[in-house]
Amino acid sequence: MSAHATLEVRLEDRSYPIHIGPGLLGRGDLVSAHLPQKKAVIVTNSTVAPLYLDAFRESLARAGVGNEVVILPDGEDHKDWQTLNRIFDALLARNAERKTALIALGGGVIGDMTGFAAATYQRGVPFVQIPTTLLSQVDSSVGGKTAINHPLGKNMIGAFYQPRVVIADTDTLKTLPARELSAGLAEVIKYGLIGDAPFFEWLEANIDRLLAGEASALTYAIEQSCRNKAVVVAADEREQGVRAHLNFGHTFGHAIEAGLGFGVWLHGEAVAAGMAIAARVSRRMGLVDDQLVKRTLSLLERAQLPVRGPALGAGRYLQLMGHDKKVEGGRTRFVLLRGLGEAFVTADVPQETLQLVLEGEGVDAA
Amino acid sequence: MSAHATLEVRLEDRSYPIHIGPGLLGRGDLVSAHLPQKKAVIVTNSTVAPLYLDAFRESLARAGVGNEVVILPDGEDHKDWQTLNRIFDALLARNAERKTALIALGGGVIGDMTGFAAATYQRGVPFVQIPTTLLSQVDSSVGGKTAINHPLGKNMIGAFYQPRVVIADTDTLKTLPARELSAGLAEVIKYGLIGDAPFFEWLEANIDRLLAGEASALTYAIEQSCRNKAVVVAADEREQGVRAHLNFGHTFGHAIEAGLGFGVWLHGEAVAAGMAIAARVSRRMGLVDDQLVKRTLSLLERAQLPVRGPALGAGRYLQLMGHDKKVEGGRTRFVLLRGLGEAFVTADVPQETLQLVLEGEGVDAA
Repeated sequence: MSAHATLEVRLEDRSYPIHIGPGLLGRGDLVSAHLPQKKAVIVTNSTVAPLYLDAFRESLARAGVGNEVVILPDGEDHKDWQTLNRIFDALLARNAERKTALIALGGGVIGDMTGFAAATYQRGVPFVQIPTTLLSQVDSSVGGKTAINHPLGKNMIGAFYQPRVVIADTDTLKTLPARELSAGLAEVIKYGLIGDAPFFEWLEANIDRLLAGEASALTYAIEQSCRNKAVVVAADEREQGVRAHLNFGHTFGHAIEAGLGFGVWLHGEAVAAGMAIAARVSRRMGLVDDQLVKRTLSLLERAQLPVRGPALGAGRYLQLMGHDKKVEGGRTRFVLLRGLGEAFVTADVPQETLQLVLEGEGVDAA
Repeated sequence: MSAHATLEVRLEDRSYPIHIGPGLLGRGDLVSAHLPQKKAVIVTNSTVAPLYLDAFRESLARAGVGNEVVILPDGEDHKDWQTLNRIFDALLARNAERKTALIALGGGVIGDMTGFAAATYQRGVPFVQIPTTLLSQVDSSVGGKTAINHPLGKNMIGAFYQPRVVIADTDTLKTLPARELSAGLAEVIKYGLIGDAPFFEWLEANIDRLLAGEASALTYAIEQSCRNKAVVVAADEREQGVRAHLNFGHTFGHAIEAGLGFGVWLHGEAVAAGMAIAARVSRRMGLVDDQLVKRTLSLLERAQLPVRGPALGAGRYLQLMGHDKKVEGGRTRFVLLRGLGEAFVTADVPQETLQLVLEGEGVDAA
């Protein structure tokens, strides 16, 4: 038995625990406790399977959970209907029933697709998430967002669907490429910026321990990130209000991902640049001072993240944001800062401010 | 203003009204009252569009609701991902936002697909149902079931998603082929059989008025059907318990549809034969008397419905039922009768009883 942290996400009858710490892939009992039937189909990808699948299956088997496997190709390119349908094909070919659980073992793409499959197979079957990247551990673990991409937009088809339990094993981060660890840290830093100044300060002091993969630091950072997200999600499960804060950096970030083609930049990298843009917009509007922008850029840079978007041109940025889900009544709503740990939503951003900041992306230096 | 009946389906924050009666397609105000934004995309098919689309669009426009249209090919064959994706394509091409409503104008296939599109486009947009067949008015109006078919199973991919309002205009039944009116009556009769003996008796007395298309009789039958279904759904929104009663006749019916190929028999025809089979199984098990079986078959026959399944052979029936969603722990659960208006669920049906009854389908005479 390993020591680990447990966080309860409170959503009335859809509440569930997140277990965080090293060695948890060996704890099939933590999964088993939440299954209505001791049967599961594990969905993973061709990168994660060779690393963790066998050990996890054995741990499930020890806990009495019969399991089968669907292995999908790796990558955001495959977050589409065709790949999702391979899950449905496998479930139907095996006569999977309504109480058979779907377990996502992998990063955000596997989690999003498996979650959407679980939300929609026979109109909903039990879902378990085993995120194996930092980004998915701090982002997809809380919130119940599932989706696939459409050729005309990222995450455009999906559902809100909560897992029965989430297991974040920090050991899986040992095999994560450095670039992906950094991309995950972008979302970690976001939680500090939008709502938790003390956590932002802890990150300023401990970013090097996280980059070095220290289990105790990672466990703390994941727990604080999930806790911050859980508070917001519990207040606004279906994204009608305050939950929009979680999209800090994402409106610009999605434009970057779409503009370059999905997969060129990692999601976390685009969000990092998007947060830097949002910070610059906030400063230009006189909402925050230079010092906060500097601290933000400095922490992102120490985490090996970009603090500039690519030079798409302001017009293209604005056009790409027209497809963003955060659009209402034809106007784009932005999440900005009015202080460290103080995000807010506004549609009142002067066009010339946007133009000025976005025209500078990829060009000027500060 | 036409007089009409209104029924409230109570589901906490997802409660909604069903308006039933003649002339309601002209009441765009009944739709408009439930839209968060006065914008909608109407999804209909190539059969319904020439009959009702223009008048409905005008009525929406009079109520101030801007609207666009997606016309899909007609038929259960098209209840698939490819056709669903045409809705997504249209929504994305038009930059449809999270508050733009999707309105289903058509029968069950249009309702199920449009509902699933509404449940999943951007993880959920407002949904309005305008069912134009008797079957969809009495079945899909209540319950929030949405789905598409998969090559390996009917309605295997879907979601529970509630509409904001349902409008059942009995005038649309005037253009409904007689065979489809009868198919709708199968579900109407079902409500009497499973839980409402007085309504069954009313149907015995009034079936001819319904077949003749009398508006007041239709309004009453639709209202009673929706009321019966609403009581069950309110008690069990996510189909964990008593809601299974609504599947009376459906386990056998689905086997018939799948065995013959979807679309050969209408859904309601398969359900009628399925109810007759369920009644015969109930009698063989000594749960009901000959008299009840006779009354059931007689009412179904007067409604121009089949009271025999096709001669698929008992083995094929049982195999086909293995894919049914009402399967749990590997055992098929059946909805049977123990009296008029008294359905119940059981997995304890002797194999030889099933064999005996199913072997007789399409063959013997009583």
